[in-house]
Amino acid sequence: MVDERLPQPDAEDIELVKVMHALGDPVRIRLLGVYADGGEHSCAPEAVGLGHLHKSTVSHHMRVMREAGITTTRVAGRNRYVRLRRDELDARFPGLLDALLKSLP
Amino acid sequence: MVDERLPQPDAEDIELVKVMHALGDPVRIRLLGVYADGGEHSCAPEAVGLGHLHKSTVSHHMRVMREAGITTTRVAGRNRYVRLRRDELDARFPGLLDALLKSLP
Repeated sequence: MVDERLPQPDAEDIELVKVMHALGDPVRIRLLGVYADGGEHSCAPEAVGLGHLHKSTVSHHMRVMREAGITTTRVAGRNRYVRLRRDELDARFPGLLDALLKSLP
Repeated sequence: MVDERLPQPDAEDIELVKVMHALGDPVRIRLLGVYADGGEHSCAPEAVGLGHLHKSTVSHHMRVMREAGITTTRVAGRNRYVRLRRDELDARFPGLLDALLKSLP
């Protein structure tokens, strides 16, 4: 069986204002820093340095990022793996992600 | 008498997450496009293409942008003029404003 992906906007439907809104939060901008390496990351709060937050809170933040088009989530059995949609974001908003990652606190 | 400025954060206190939050709104991202020319703009809603919104609504959006450090507001008598803090934003977040302005819808 092929791995599934959680719902996400097509690349051409990613909107700048939704990306900005998604990143206008301290937890989500921190997650951007975690995902900056381009690799897949477990959804477990402690795996992304957010062990002090409730799992449902972290899930909410991850959903906002996915629905804004920043990340993609692969479902493999009972596990979910998140990564940045680097190529698609670079194509849609040239230079934006680079500038953001360089500006992270 | 010297013109006054409304309260704004010092350049070194501008925070990425607050800039993102300020731009995570359709009206404010539109205002960014208006201010992109670097010039001073009247606060009147119709002067910035927002004649369909109430003056207090437009004022609120302008305040959010100013308090985030995106714009500066000069007070001259009964008039107020807004412009982008281009140089300060470029120094603090290199490349970010350019990428944002190129990505505007």
